[in-house]
Amino acid sequence: MVHDTIAAISTAVGEGGIAIIRVSGPDAIEGIARIFRSKINLKDADTHTIHYGHIVDPSTGEQVEEVLVTLMRGPRSFTAEDVVEINAHGGVIAVKKVLDVVLQLDGYRTAEPGEFTKRAFLNGRIDLMQAEAVIDLIRSKSDRAFSVARKQAEGVLSKRIKVLRQTVIELLAHIEVNIDYPEHDVEEMTSAYIRDQCGLAIYEIERLLKTANEGKILREGIVTAIVGRPNVGKSSLMNVLTQENKAIVTDIPGTTRDVIEQFVALNGIPLRLLDTAGIRETSDVVERIGVERSRNALEEADLILFVLNNNEPLQVEDRELLEQLKDRPVIVIVNKTDLPRQLEIEVVEEAFPPQSIVRMSVVEEEGLDRLERTISEMFFEGQLESGDLTYVSNVRHISLLKRAKQSLEDAIEASNMGIPIDVIQIDARTAWESLGEILGDEAGDSLIDQIFSQFCLGK
Amino acid sequence: MVHDTIAAISTAVGEGGIAIIRVSGPDAIEGIARIFRSKINLKDADTHTIHYGHIVDPSTGEQVEEVLVTLMRGPRSFTAEDVVEINAHGGVIAVKKVLDVVLQLDGYRTAEPGEFTKRAFLNGRIDLMQAEAVIDLIRSKSDRAFSVARKQAEGVLSKRIKVLRQTVIELLAHIEVNIDYPEHDVEEMTSAYIRDQCGLAIYEIERLLKTANEGKILREGIVTAIVGRPNVGKSSLMNVLTQENKAIVTDIPGTTRDVIEQFVALNGIPLRLLDTAGIRETSDVVERIGVERSRNALEEADLILFVLNNNEPLQVEDRELLEQLKDRPVIVIVNKTDLPRQLEIEVVEEAFPPQSIVRMSVVEEEGLDRLERTISEMFFEGQLESGDLTYVSNVRHISLLKRAKQSLEDAIEASNMGIPIDVIQIDARTAWESLGEILGDEAGDSLIDQIFSQFCLGK
Repeated sequence: MVHDTIAAISTAVGEGGIAIIRVSGPDAIEGIARIFRSKINLKDADTHTIHYGHIVDPSTGEQVEEVLVTLMRGPRSFTAEDVVEINAHGGVIAVKKVLDVVLQLDGYRTAEPGEFTKRAFLNGRIDLMQAEAVIDLIRSKSDRAFSVARKQAEGVLSKRIKVLRQTVIELLAHIEVNIDYPEHDVEEMTSAYIRDQCGLAIYEIERLLKTANEGKILREGIVTAIVGRPNVGKSSLMNVLTQENKAIVTDIPGTTRDVIEQFVALNGIPLRLLDTAGIRETSDVVERIGVERSRNALEEADLILFVLNNNEPLQVEDRELLEQLKDRPVIVIVNKTDLPRQLEIEVVEEAFPPQSIVRMSVVEEEGLDRLERTISEMFFEGQLESGDLTYVSNVRHISLLKRAKQSLEDAIEASNMGIPIDVIQIDARTAWESLGEILGDEAGDSLIDQIFSQFCLGK
Repeated sequence: MVHDTIAAISTAVGEGGIAIIRVSGPDAIEGIARIFRSKINLKDADTHTIHYGHIVDPSTGEQVEEVLVTLMRGPRSFTAEDVVEINAHGGVIAVKKVLDVVLQLDGYRTAEPGEFTKRAFLNGRIDLMQAEAVIDLIRSKSDRAFSVARKQAEGVLSKRIKVLRQTVIELLAHIEVNIDYPEHDVEEMTSAYIRDQCGLAIYEIERLLKTANEGKILREGIVTAIVGRPNVGKSSLMNVLTQENKAIVTDIPGTTRDVIEQFVALNGIPLRLLDTAGIRETSDVVERIGVERSRNALEEADLILFVLNNNEPLQVEDRELLEQLKDRPVIVIVNKTDLPRQLEIEVVEEAFPPQSIVRMSVVEEEGLDRLERTISEMFFEGQLESGDLTYVSNVRHISLLKRAKQSLEDAIEASNMGIPIDVIQIDARTAWESLGEILGDEAGDSLIDQIFSQFCLGK
């Protein structure tokens, strides 16, 4: 069990009307009661009530800040422990001053990133899969990614993993009975049972993995490169895509790659635009980042938006790109359809299938819906709307599901080959553990630490 | 009275554990009750309670987000109206989705910047001076600026203005009785009374205005330029000043001026560092921004930190700066005192008084306390620690106090000159109105709109 009390600023940093300092742990109520001057005594207050008062620095007696304090007694709280939330005025200084006073309390320390959610997990309120969804919720960059994370946070996916595990545990129980009491067994029946039960589990895993590609894309975005020679309208396209999404557009600092990325959502489809800064600055990616690097970016892209100018004949550079992009996941954007056609469209139509050619006038914002439909068909088989949004989207989950599937296939093969049942037991147990690791039942401390360290502070 | 219900995101925008949508107005409870699915009915809930549940989109029935909803019935709330606060997961999408659903409710609209605080003012919960302090609280960049704003938000300053107004209203009453019943008057007595009463008010206004300079500096920061030739340690000084204040350092986009500013707090003294980007980039402001512009920056500065290298003899550039800065508010930093002295310190001592020369080793972080003490003596006469932090810091308040003072002086002069009492009455009334404008009693709609439009959204 956890014995210390943790505190952190839980709202985003910056100017705002309200900022929250969240406190969780055995001394949450007792501690804050000592620095909270109010008409009531926090220790006597009912759970799920909010109280007006002041935070007072006990060393000076000075009123530090005017606050509202919310009290949620465990287990009816986010962490399942006693939780106190202090609502202070927004802004950097106010929260910092309050947090300083809070952290001076006995048994208090700063919460690590994700530690509140980690406690919710360790206290059994949510499983690991649900906990991981919490950070996806916060990070999500499109409505659909958010909805996928919501489903996962609610435990919809967890339930399906649990059903899967149930199938495997029944198999294991059957095998173990067989090992313990071999006299009760009819060899063929066990073998058939193993095949059936494993097949059932594999079928369900495959159903889940089918959603993985789309889930991953929804979660992480379609890595998209915009290419084309100068002045075909790349930066206008950029602007239209990002302007429509002012609230969602974010710059992702280039971590592993040198190119800068930007996240936009095209009517719910999350695009991760590569090297947008380059496009804005010089109107020419290829020129700016050099052939080598632009080629890398193209290799990496899930989707290439290749822009051509409807109003000009094909240039040498256009033809080169046309050739170079032939076997890549390309959508050709024939831009400037508001102007007379000069482009040899038949050359383009020879190189790319008709469903991947989109006529647009970016300046008139004409054809965006077609672009969106084309992307949706390419990546979601046009089914995005109707999906139930239960996707496996997390790489960790995907790889554990694949491992479980492999173990179950090994078990079937071993059974077919007449290999002794205690070897098959090992396969079944591995499958059981892999599935357990998804939910966190079998996850080691270091894995758990690693997962929660990716969280933001205060969650 | 206000009839519509307003809603806005009240936490800072960005990734965080919690984000809050605040709702205020006559339909706050009824409206949110319609989209909040929970074990309880929000309409029946007690004031100052918090409830777990889901926000549901009424048009689709879809659960949009898992939330905690806080209920505060007016007048016991920030706005003195019914207030509902929805705590959602942090991150851009979660709050946006919830806000979208909220804003679809009948009679709801997006709150303007500062509109919650404006309602608190219009509903008489706080006066205009207190309301203005709210945005100072959020914007404050140092502990002391925050404490000054806190005092003002609490109404400490308002009380002093009210006492002042009391003095003036007594004067007015006396004059009016005199006008209405001139037969009751003894001319000389009234004249003496006017002088006494005006003198009393002027004395109090002067006491307040004495704090204005320091108050303004605390609120807005000491505009500080760091100058010196290359390699004397300007950028190291920069780094030491900003690194110590990681949480508080903010970039202020250059609005009226071209130079970039950065805000740091040196143990509570707020410095607004000019052109720090320049220093970082080229290690030489003067070079980078050109003689003309650097001269402008120097003209504008409240404080110039002039850095010299202890380890080298004075160079031509040093001597030029020495000459140029002679009559400016300069602190000379003799840097690199950890290295042997080569500097002709006597030349420096001839040009600047000893109390404005600070010996430091920026690299060893040695002497920062001396720098701080020197600044404190220069701007706060060393009294910063002991002050009661009741400062007039707002330019609007300062100018209205000056106007009131002027009117009262006019009244005395008129009285001395034997000018008819109904002219003196006009002066007294102007003083009364000026003081009232500070508290917002006499403030026109356009002034009020202008003040609150400077607020951030959601406050």
